[in-house]
Amino acid sequence: MNPTIDLLQGHRSIRKFKPTPLSDEQKQAIIQSAQMASSSSNIQAYSVIGVTDPELKKELARLAGNQSYVEECGLFLVWCADLYRLQQACAKHGVDMQHQYVESFLVSTVDVSLAAQNAAVAAEALGLGIVYIGGIRQNPAAVTELLKLPKLVYPVFGMCVGVPDQEPFHRPRLSTPSVYHENTYQPSQIAQGIEDYDQTMRDYYHERSGGKMDTTWSKQISEKYAHPSRAHMRAFLDDQGFGFE
Amino acid sequence: MNPTIDLLQGHRSIRKFKPTPLSDEQKQAIIQSAQMASSSSNIQAYSVIGVTDPELKKELARLAGNQSYVEECGLFLVWCADLYRLQQACAKHGVDMQHQYVESFLVSTVDVSLAAQNAAVAAEALGLGIVYIGGIRQNPAAVTELLKLPKLVYPVFGMCVGVPDQEPFHRPRLSTPSVYHENTYQPSQIAQGIEDYDQTMRDYYHERSGGKMDTTWSKQISEKYAHPSRAHMRAFLDDQGFGFE
Repeated sequence: MNPTIDLLQGHRSIRKFKPTPLSDEQKQAIIQSAQMASSSSNIQAYSVIGVTDPELKKELARLAGNQSYVEECGLFLVWCADLYRLQQACAKHGVDMQHQYVESFLVSTVDVSLAAQNAAVAAEALGLGIVYIGGIRQNPAAVTELLKLPKLVYPVFGMCVGVPDQEPFHRPRLSTPSVYHENTYQPSQIAQGIEDYDQTMRDYYHERSGGKMDTTWSKQISEKYAHPSRAHMRAFLDDQGFGFE
Repeated sequence: MNPTIDLLQGHRSIRKFKPTPLSDEQKQAIIQSAQMASSSSNIQAYSVIGVTDPELKKELARLAGNQSYVEECGLFLVWCADLYRLQQACAKHGVDMQHQYVESFLVSTVDVSLAAQNAAVAAEALGLGIVYIGGIRQNPAAVTELLKLPKLVYPVFGMCVGVPDQEPFHRPRLSTPSVYHENTYQPSQIAQGIEDYDQTMRDYYHERSGGKMDTTWSKQISEKYAHPSRAHMRAFLDDQGFGFE
């Protein structure tokens, strides 16, 4: 229909990369595309660390839970919500920044996400592959120390970028009516969506595993959320100076 | 260089729309592009409400702080972080979902942002224009009631989509070295970036206002953050069942 729409709908995460580094032109196209994403009141409350140093990549791969593709990809990006720059802007005018509100945590987290997704699309437009790495929140304090992030900056997620060395399956998504509602939220669409997706994903896992895997989406979700999720994050964010008032 | 990169780098927010509604094909291309964005552990923790009802749009325009383009655009999307679907998935297996952690707030906010940015890119690829509307967080409880959002769902931002009826300026961004760091965070790049951008934005405002506007980026930031930011958000999020442990 449209090459950009085709690109967006053709996304799949890449977890095996050739060791080719990115060219300066590729990096520039990716970062400048990220920068043109929308930003809440133009605050641009994010920074991104491009990690190419082999020792740093190796250590980040370990901290992310031994994800080898962090080490192997051409460029590892660490996307950070950044209120430090805003604090510095305030300090220039003698203002003590009021950043203790959950709203500031929220807008900086949204800003970095919009920028990162533009980067992901740009990378794929250049024929590269990407995968988001939430695993850097397994050890966020160590990542922060390693990358010398100041207070009021936190690593939200990483992103491997590089030349794909695999052709993975496209993972099916929830049905559109399960996520898209007309005018008001329809709980019945949610219930039906879970039923339908469980069937879809059972078939998908069965086929991918040669019949060995027998599970559903809701089963996996229930196993994941039976336990606390990264319960260390709040103390880490407090230490970094983020507020939740 | 590449039509998708050109599209990403050519973004500007549109705040004046023709009253043309979107076709079903356009809506479908936009929402299905959103759905293909990456999602943390495939939780797909978001929902989007497509508002076309004129009365609802009018009321949302008012709640967002009298932003008339919310009413005038072809389609108003309300992007919601959604843990309700996950809770229902857990309930299907008799599991009491552990969602009280800031991590769950974080991943759902990131998931919806990645999906929304894909939607923004898809809309622009179709020749439409968009603007994000953070203003729906001015009155989040009223928006929630109006759209019948259940507990564990919150409206993160709105998005006007429609046929552009203006050709706005492209707003300059921070310099690339101010947001992009090699291997470790460089505070000196932040300081220099603020100085450079203040000069850029002073010139930009001066030109756009025919010489009447004399301000800088850091000055605007310092005025914004001298005061609390949407201090009502925490109580609202507590009411909706989000946790910050």
